[in-house]
Amino acid sequence: MARRAAAAARLLRRLGPLASEPPVRGIPHTQYEFASRTVSSCRRFHWIPSLQRPPHGPRTNVETYEGKHSANMASEVQKRTFGSAATHIQRNPAYSELNSDDVSYFKSILGDNGVVQDEDRIAVANVDWMGKYRGASQLLLLPKNTTEVSKILSYCNTRRLAVVPQGGNTGLVGGSVPVYDEVIVSLAGMDKIISFDNVNGILTSEAGCVLENLSTFVENEGFIMPLDLGAKGSCQIGGNISTNAGGLRFIRYGSLHGNVLGLEVVLADGTILDMLTTLRKDNTGYDLKHLFIGSLGVVTKISVLTPAKLPATNVAFLSCNDYTSCQKLLLAARRNLGEILSAFEFMDHHCIDLAMRHLEGVQNPLPASQYKFYVLIETTGSDESYDKTKLEAFLLRSMEDGLVSDGVIAQDISQASNFWRIREGISEASVKVGAVYKYDLSIPVEKLYDIVEEMRCRLGDNAEVLGYGHLGDGNLHLNILSSKYDDSTLAQIEPFVYEWTSSQRGSISAEHGLGLMKAEKIHYSKSPEAVQLMASIKKLLDPNSILNPYKVLPQSVL
Amino acid sequence: MARRAAAAARLLRRLGPLASEPPVRGIPHTQYEFASRTVSSCRRFHWIPSLQRPPHGPRTNVETYEGKHSANMASEVQKRTFGSAATHIQRNPAYSELNSDDVSYFKSILGDNGVVQDEDRIAVANVDWMGKYRGASQLLLLPKNTTEVSKILSYCNTRRLAVVPQGGNTGLVGGSVPVYDEVIVSLAGMDKIISFDNVNGILTSEAGCVLENLSTFVENEGFIMPLDLGAKGSCQIGGNISTNAGGLRFIRYGSLHGNVLGLEVVLADGTILDMLTTLRKDNTGYDLKHLFIGSLGVVTKISVLTPAKLPATNVAFLSCNDYTSCQKLLLAARRNLGEILSAFEFMDHHCIDLAMRHLEGVQNPLPASQYKFYVLIETTGSDESYDKTKLEAFLLRSMEDGLVSDGVIAQDISQASNFWRIREGISEASVKVGAVYKYDLSIPVEKLYDIVEEMRCRLGDNAEVLGYGHLGDGNLHLNILSSKYDDSTLAQIEPFVYEWTSSQRGSISAEHGLGLMKAEKIHYSKSPEAVQLMASIKKLLDPNSILNPYKVLPQSVL
Repeated sequence: MARRAAAAARLLRRLGPLASEPPVRGIPHTQYEFASRTVSSCRRFHWIPSLQRPPHGPRTNVETYEGKHSANMASEVQKRTFGSAATHIQRNPAYSELNSDDVSYFKSILGDNGVVQDEDRIAVANVDWMGKYRGASQLLLLPKNTTEVSKILSYCNTRRLAVVPQGGNTGLVGGSVPVYDEVIVSLAGMDKIISFDNVNGILTSEAGCVLENLSTFVENEGFIMPLDLGAKGSCQIGGNISTNAGGLRFIRYGSLHGNVLGLEVVLADGTILDMLTTLRKDNTGYDLKHLFIGSLGVVTKISVLTPAKLPATNVAFLSCNDYTSCQKLLLAARRNLGEILSAFEFMDHHCIDLAMRHLEGVQNPLPASQYKFYVLIETTGSDESYDKTKLEAFLLRSMEDGLVSDGVIAQDISQASNFWRIREGISEASVKVGAVYKYDLSIPVEKLYDIVEEMRCRLGDNAEVLGYGHLGDGNLHLNILSSKYDDSTLAQIEPFVYEWTSSQRGSISAEHGLGLMKAEKIHYSKSPEAVQLMASIKKLLDPNSILNPYKVLPQSVL
Repeated sequence: MARRAAAAARLLRRLGPLASEPPVRGIPHTQYEFASRTVSSCRRFHWIPSLQRPPHGPRTNVETYEGKHSANMASEVQKRTFGSAATHIQRNPAYSELNSDDVSYFKSILGDNGVVQDEDRIAVANVDWMGKYRGASQLLLLPKNTTEVSKILSYCNTRRLAVVPQGGNTGLVGGSVPVYDEVIVSLAGMDKIISFDNVNGILTSEAGCVLENLSTFVENEGFIMPLDLGAKGSCQIGGNISTNAGGLRFIRYGSLHGNVLGLEVVLADGTILDMLTTLRKDNTGYDLKHLFIGSLGVVTKISVLTPAKLPATNVAFLSCNDYTSCQKLLLAARRNLGEILSAFEFMDHHCIDLAMRHLEGVQNPLPASQYKFYVLIETTGSDESYDKTKLEAFLLRSMEDGLVSDGVIAQDISQASNFWRIREGISEASVKVGAVYKYDLSIPVEKLYDIVEEMRCRLGDNAEVLGYGHLGDGNLHLNILSSKYDDSTLAQIEPFVYEWTSSQRGSISAEHGLGLMKAEKIHYSKSPEAVQLMASIKKLLDPNSILNPYKVLPQSVL
């Protein structure tokens, strides 16, 4: 009991209204206390520019686009990008080059507004938001409905014109931008909500809807989207599905394979595949939609099961002395918070230091630079006072057991937003340093932090190594920061990072996908038989390989 | 307040220890009161015989198998089965007939014990548990590992011998038995648990493990299987996955597409596809495992994410005056029980009457024949007293609002088991009547009971029409009972039931699959383009069509 009282006193020193020490840094006027208001309507800060928002602000590291490139210049352009695979790929000569007849045809089906040749607008679509991957497309198409998408693909398939479908262009592996002169087909013009069943929580919309807009819409109906990610202000639901995005709610609501009920997809030859059921269960034949959760066609419409919005959300920001404590805390949270646990994110202190240096208006709710690891825990449930009591009891017990060294619980939406902003802002902050080598790995939880420490040993003072991610899903984001991209640093990282992950039977892409960056690395996580079957299915669905070439699968198997 | 008190008094009259009226029928010694013990370890009654348990007891309606049939006799045999599709299918002459060299080869790889020619044992495997579908296989193979499965399929593919993979043979659509003389490959000999990660709840096992055995195993480790169904005592996890089974926990834990982490599969040509990851997230290439959740290969090993076992389970058995109240109750349960709701099953009074007539030892906890609809609600959470209070408050409010007319909450495991036994025993009870025409439909909840009433009007006194199922998933089980199968009754049911479902954009198979019964009906729920793509994928994976022929897809597209 004495230990428990002491632990409680420590927790309340940080959290309670009775605290007598000076306010923690950056929260000058408010002593923390246990949350008394719900934060479910908390709006997080968004930072990834979309097609509609030309890059500025956080995108300062993006090189200025220097003008129009012809297909012949693309090879040169590509060399300036960073990516272990990109520099080795040659343009596939089987693809035609765009001509004026093609442009005329597209104008005939899309109208002048749907055919973009303006250099500045194309420039934005040619480069990913990190400025790592840059193509040389000369044409951006903006279809407004499925029939137009179908006509575009049917024509491109016949003409052997390669195509890149593009959503919010927020990907991290070069999957959403051209490699050479592929025609960009943006889904941004298909952004209508089609229906919402507010009894069963089933949303049907076009693929170009921005995730945050859908989120706001269903929240007003008393539901939430089953996925949430830092890029929600720009990413589109069709892109989320085409890349099988993971994100922050995965621990609670699982993968898109479980949440997507139906899809409408256009195949490479223009065939429209209507699988847009809104049924919770449908066991008539093979469930084809899963082939398109992860890219094998252009998703044009979606239906998604949205969970009920529960009224009580609590967010705690905690510190742990070592990684073992983080693991034990996860296990304890699963056991003790059970059905109300909705996020378990972890960050090492390098992440926090970086966020404090580079994110405007963000405050560390705990004493700076004192702890090695930080954990953000969120609970979501239907009873505010019960959930709060449960979380407080859990945290007190965790402090008593030595798993948590310090912690705060958000007392209002603003504080909860600040906690989330730290976690969600790490990626944004990391690109401000100069160069960032980003890896997204699934590794058994007990080994997950080993690769961060090993990488630190390998790189020494050459780079800053950050480890953070979705601990509840065994998903590490390994970011390596350096003043600039160079081959010698890359050679110290790769293939070591892939070999190490493979040796743990991990995945070299937990949620970001393979894209261009890791298309040639698939064998680290998949057997030759599986890769061969993927190639066979790709050939079946896209025999001329016009859809998003050079991505996902190694060129050698196609 | 007066209304609330009156409602409480009514509920407590049925539930409370203060009740002064005589005990309800069949519960002679115990007044109901609110549950004070958890029932999470409740063991339900199981009734479906497995390969290891020769048919007896409930299986009395199965016709006696009359001896060995040659392939030439199969056509005649087939005519004796019931099934709208089965009678119209001819044996595909492209398949070879089994000869003694084949048997010798199988003995050389499996040993004598792995090659079963004994008539009685084969007879059990030739017929489904309802006695509706009967094949004429002469050979049952029992591989003990993946290599043996691979050798069998490689040989059969070369020799053009058709194969039926068989799990627990508990299917309801004729998918798990031969149609003609296909070789039966039973996975029953592959029943080892390979590993269990008790931090993350990840189970890896062979495909032949009986679901209930896995359930017991993981429960001892503090977890539960994400699926549960009436057939759990016999069905095998590989069969569950190959048929994309749904079941009782779907409302809480979702589909197998969300819960299966990895698979090992043998393709038709014997290729072993190792996708047996145990990672929560893996986004490296197309997620091929989904092609095998629903049959396109022989599943040999599985890994599944198992949710933590929560300590508090409560089960309520309620009555509603009309179907609209059932719907409103579902909506209210979603809103008010939120994260602890783990089952919402409904039954009409015909189901209850049938269960009382045909299930031994089962008691109706509510006054017999007084109500039109019954609902079983289960909650599972981490805090017993909190959950109980929450459920009680919800039920009182529902009575006050007139949604619930009467109800009981199980006070111990025995009562909870009795409630579940009623719901799970309906299928068993229905086959005791004589003939049962079974349909498994997904229909928007607001329309779900209309088909039951329309069918009752169509059939009049010729048959008894039962409606029950997983209301929380929009999944109706429509059972039509008659003294015997006859074509005129069938003609009144089909194609009406499929046309009606299709007109509502429903699914003609929510969770049972298409099997043999509905292979030719797929167009009621799937577009021609989707069916064509399914056929193309089937041809890609099984070019000689040796795996489970005549099932799932129409013969015309293959």
